[in-house]
Amino acid sequence: MNISLSTFSHIIEILGTIAFAISGVFAAMDKKLDVFGVTIIAFVTAIGGGTVRDILIGATPVAWMKDINTLLIILGTAIVTMLFRNRIVNLQKTLLLFDALGLGLFTIIGIKKGLAIDLKPGICITLGTITGCFGGVIRDLLLNHIPALFHADLYATPCIVGGLLYFLMIPYINEEWAQVAAIIVICMVRIIAYRKNWRLPTL
Amino acid sequence: MNISLSTFSHIIEILGTIAFAISGVFAAMDKKLDVFGVTIIAFVTAIGGGTVRDILIGATPVAWMKDINTLLIILGTAIVTMLFRNRIVNLQKTLLLFDALGLGLFTIIGIKKGLAIDLKPGICITLGTITGCFGGVIRDLLLNHIPALFHADLYATPCIVGGLLYFLMIPYINEEWAQVAAIIVICMVRIIAYRKNWRLPTL
Amino acid sequence: MNISLSTFSHIIEILGTIAFAISGVFAAMDKKLDVFGVTIIAFVTAIGGGTVRDILIGATPVAWMKDINTLLIILGTAIVTMLFRNRIVNLQKTLLLFDALGLGLFTIIGIKKGLAIDLKPGICITLGTITGCFGGVIRDLLLNHIPALFHADLYATPCIVGGLLYFLMIPYINEEWAQVAAIIVICMVRIIAYRKNWRLPTL
Repeated sequence: MNISLSTFSHIIEILGTIAFAISGVFAAMDKKLDVFGVTIIAFVTAIGGGTVRDILIGATPVAWMKDINTLLIILGTAIVTMLFRNRIVNLQKTLLLFDALGLGLFTIIGIKKGLAIDLKPGICITLGTITGCFGGVIRDLLLNHIPALFHADLYATPCIVGGLLYFLMIPYINEEWAQVAAIIVICMVRIIAYRKNWRLPTL
Repeated sequence: MNISLSTFSHIIEILGTIAFAISGVFAAMDKKLDVFGVTIIAFVTAIGGGTVRDILIGATPVAWMKDINTLLIILGTAIVTMLFRNRIVNLQKTLLLFDALGLGLFTIIGIKKGLAIDLKPGICITLGTITGCFGGVIRDLLLNHIPALFHADLYATPCIVGGLLYFLMIPYINEEWAQVAAIIVICMVRIIAYRKNWRLPTL
Repeated sequence: MNISLSTFSHIIEILGTIAFAISGVFAAMDKKLDVFGVTIIAFVTAIGGGTVRDILIGATPVAWMKDINTLLIILGTAIVTMLFRNRIVNLQKTLLLFDALGLGLFTIIGIKKGLAIDLKPGICITLGTITGCFGGVIRDLLLNHIPALFHADLYATPCIVGGLLYFLMIPYINEEWAQVAAIIVICMVRIIAYRKNWRLPTL
């Protein structure tokens, strides 16, 4: 059971990384960046959240520096997406699913990294949300937009909801199942919010 | 004496955090962010400077992660400010005072953190100025402005003046009184600069 | 031999820092920043790359905090450049050379810092490129541009080429000569790319 869960989470991590990188590629091509710029935006979108998390908690060298595979996966994704951009743009439904799964997993990874150094639940949920969402914030910042996270997409709310649920569940059920449930909730809330075009109010 | 000084500094820290968060809320509402975006901008304005300081010196997990109260104060401030925005906007004089007091205290906190790891005075003053001012820089960056710190507000100069004074005073007077004097100087220079609309020259 | 090489590298480091700071001053004056803002942009352009590198690997306090000379050199450069801006603008050829030499040296410094903590060659090249290029990225970000690195200048490619060459050479030649060769290659590729106005393709 343990093995298949960790294999599962490894597969989701790769799919999520790919989906995040692809979203970076398209955002960068919209702004007419050159192939290097597009590749960099793919990187920061995919690894930005985890990098900010690791810097805030002092887990250095940050995660992507210890594992050349992450870099290679993103590089491959960037190249393939640039080459087959006209086809990949049609995979929107699949990409939304991968992106939402990645969002869920990255949030939980952030929460667990916070727990491992004894941070309080509220801080852990913040750290998980940063892990899931701040790649997109840095992407938008580098492309000279106000981050979509702050005014358009309902992207952080699913992380916070899932994170709260995780902490409400762990006194009652097995920790691994709490993780799985939280990831599924984050993924579903994200997809429904996207489909229904839910927005938070502005003032 | 010691107790009352440290209680005082704790009260100023809270008032400063509230004033910084409120300035974030209004800047974010101007840009039509949603309630989540407004809350995030309140956070980064209030804790950004200290976070950059802690990252630069490697004091991780950064300060706000170790203390859930900071997060709760900012969250409360953001909610109250959004709800009562029409009244709070009239408190400008009080907020200016809190903001200037916070600027002074945060600068001194940064300087003392630098001294604690044996950095040279010039670096400590830089670190203090970053602590006081970089929350506003990150706020402006996320809202897609050129930071006001670089062309409009006279906001860093008071920190530098106060920091220099602190180091000129400590050979002669009690360290705690040097802190108090530096905070008062920073606060007064900031308020006078604001009232008189002082500007640094451009070329 | 060893002494003269390290003296050489120290001189290049200073010339590179000055050239980076000057590029920051002119970019900031274009945006009508005040004298404080111009000075800050000079700083972040000169030290931004090394600071991001040190933060990513956890080498804190970051390099410029341990050495007051870097700060003083940049401060002096900013003041002199602001005062004599009409003359310094005519030194473009010399500045291009210093800038390109600095780019080469900073890249190699980054690579060596990565090697010192056992990072893989691909990660070291990334770290070297960040060291050489990210000062300019932060400069552009603070000035509210999309970083030139991502769509205009061919600035990272020389670092990557030089970094690859370094790792291809070290099995065969003395490590110090591999460094020198890599710096010269980065410098020359950068200058030729600038002169010929080479661009990477956009999609």
